[in-house]
Amino acid sequence: MALPTHISLFEVGPRDGLQNEKQVTTADKILLVESLAAAGVKRIEAASFVSPKWVPQMADSGEVLKGISRVAGVRYSALTPNLKGLELALDANASEVAVFAAASEGFSQKNINCSIEESIERFIPLIEKAKEHNLPVRGYVSCVLGCPYDGEIATSEVARVSEILYKLGCYEISLGDTIGVGTPLKARKMVEAVAARVPVDKLALHFHDTYGQALANILASLESGIRTVDTSVAGLGGCPYAKGASGNLASEDLVYMLHGMGIETGIDLHKLIEAGNRISAALGRHSGAKVARALT
Amino acid sequence: MALPTHISLFEVGPRDGLQNEKQVTTADKILLVESLAAAGVKRIEAASFVSPKWVPQMADSGEVLKGISRVAGVRYSALTPNLKGLELALDANASEVAVFAAASEGFSQKNINCSIEESIERFIPLIEKAKEHNLPVRGYVSCVLGCPYDGEIATSEVARVSEILYKLGCYEISLGDTIGVGTPLKARKMVEAVAARVPVDKLALHFHDTYGQALANILASLESGIRTVDTSVAGLGGCPYAKGASGNLASEDLVYMLHGMGIETGIDLHKLIEAGNRISAALGRHSGAKVARALT
Repeated sequence: MALPTHISLFEVGPRDGLQNEKQVTTADKILLVESLAAAGVKRIEAASFVSPKWVPQMADSGEVLKGISRVAGVRYSALTPNLKGLELALDANASEVAVFAAASEGFSQKNINCSIEESIERFIPLIEKAKEHNLPVRGYVSCVLGCPYDGEIATSEVARVSEILYKLGCYEISLGDTIGVGTPLKARKMVEAVAARVPVDKLALHFHDTYGQALANILASLESGIRTVDTSVAGLGGCPYAKGASGNLASEDLVYMLHGMGIETGIDLHKLIEAGNRISAALGRHSGAKVARALT
Repeated sequence: MALPTHISLFEVGPRDGLQNEKQVTTADKILLVESLAAAGVKRIEAASFVSPKWVPQMADSGEVLKGISRVAGVRYSALTPNLKGLELALDANASEVAVFAAASEGFSQKNINCSIEESIERFIPLIEKAKEHNLPVRGYVSCVLGCPYDGEIATSEVARVSEILYKLGCYEISLGDTIGVGTPLKARKMVEAVAARVPVDKLALHFHDTYGQALANILASLESGIRTVDTSVAGLGGCPYAKGASGNLASEDLVYMLHGMGIETGIDLHKLIEAGNRISAALGRHSGAKVARALT
């Protein structure tokens, strides 16, 4: 295997995770983000400025970003669906922001009530304004390995949407298997199709573990040059819009695999487990990380 | 990837699974085995003739084997620790039997109260007698990727014990990551070390999912020529002697991955899920198969 020596983890638990869990306090969220940074995580999605009408769990995102004791070298990201969201993210001093499009027309319509093209049009002024503030913008593409409405998605369509976001100025494109239906060869084939249009070191994987395949799919993609993976501590969250979706891949399980393969992450696994166990206790649920259950 | 076109599943749920769950009725066990065969599973470990003093869940193994409506082409296996167990297996008309040794001296002592060498000595007359009855014998080797007492296990030791069992007459050697601590590169390296001493088509993988790594470890080993994998429907079971052990890999999750990769198993995934859901209901627990939860 031609494997990397280092993988960058992009931690989405405080946002993609908690937005799909029951409400926790602002203090719990701040503690979670600070615990993740203390464990060595350098990139943390800490906030979402989507309307609280749609995602009430994220209504305190400004307070969370403002309340964190920041660590030098750690980036605190916010999801921003529109210009208003961007303004809130700027006000709260987010280190970077993220926009999201779908590779599936059906999912775009059901999830954000507009076509793929319309969603991208809306992001253009947002990305322009972010550039004015020297704020990096990350791009999410959902349903890259299948859609709950449209079924299989052509890799060419994933590549097309990814390339548009990249050319608009997104510094990195995160490829989301939103409903977790992918398997290793399909995952690798998709990554290679996108990598033909966007430099592979500008791609990240964001694979949900709904069918238990996420870790195997990531493993299969590492040889294609992937160097960034999105995960969620304690396997927090999922996607409420996607049938059968049941959570992100647990950060702990990926870190365990990578370290066991001699691939560095810069993360202290035991501190990561502590962070996951603490938020799981706040939610009154078991950790979704098998590694956490095995080592606790 | 140099991948196989077909993988043979060896289903261990009714034995390795149920021996570590609470008691179910003999009728439930028979229904489980028959449901697995109806789903297309060709090799099912249905019984264990270990002393009921140690494993009370398996006390009705003779009744189970005798009660199954057998399907032509399906093999019903029994675990046999000694000559007495072999006699019971013969009486119940098992299609094949299995013996078990450890790659770890510490685990052998704690699990079966004797050294590795002593355990192998005991199997010699058993294997001889099985040969007289033309009964195939399978060999398990446990702790191939780590031991709860001895820590890391040398691949040379795994290869040594595997070769002894193979040369004694075991038709296949099942390599058990009993505590699920392995990661992909270590798994592949171990498989390759054993394959240097035992033909790779005589090897099977039996990986527990305690750390969530089993599917990735199997994926990494497929390119080394592995063609047989042991799994447990609904992720039943675990190992009560190994700290932190929490169940076998769920058959459903492996079948989903293999089919998604274009690798045949001969198994009907939906019937397999039904079989797993039925026994999970009998146990009053959720299925441990993510695929089952996603598709049910």
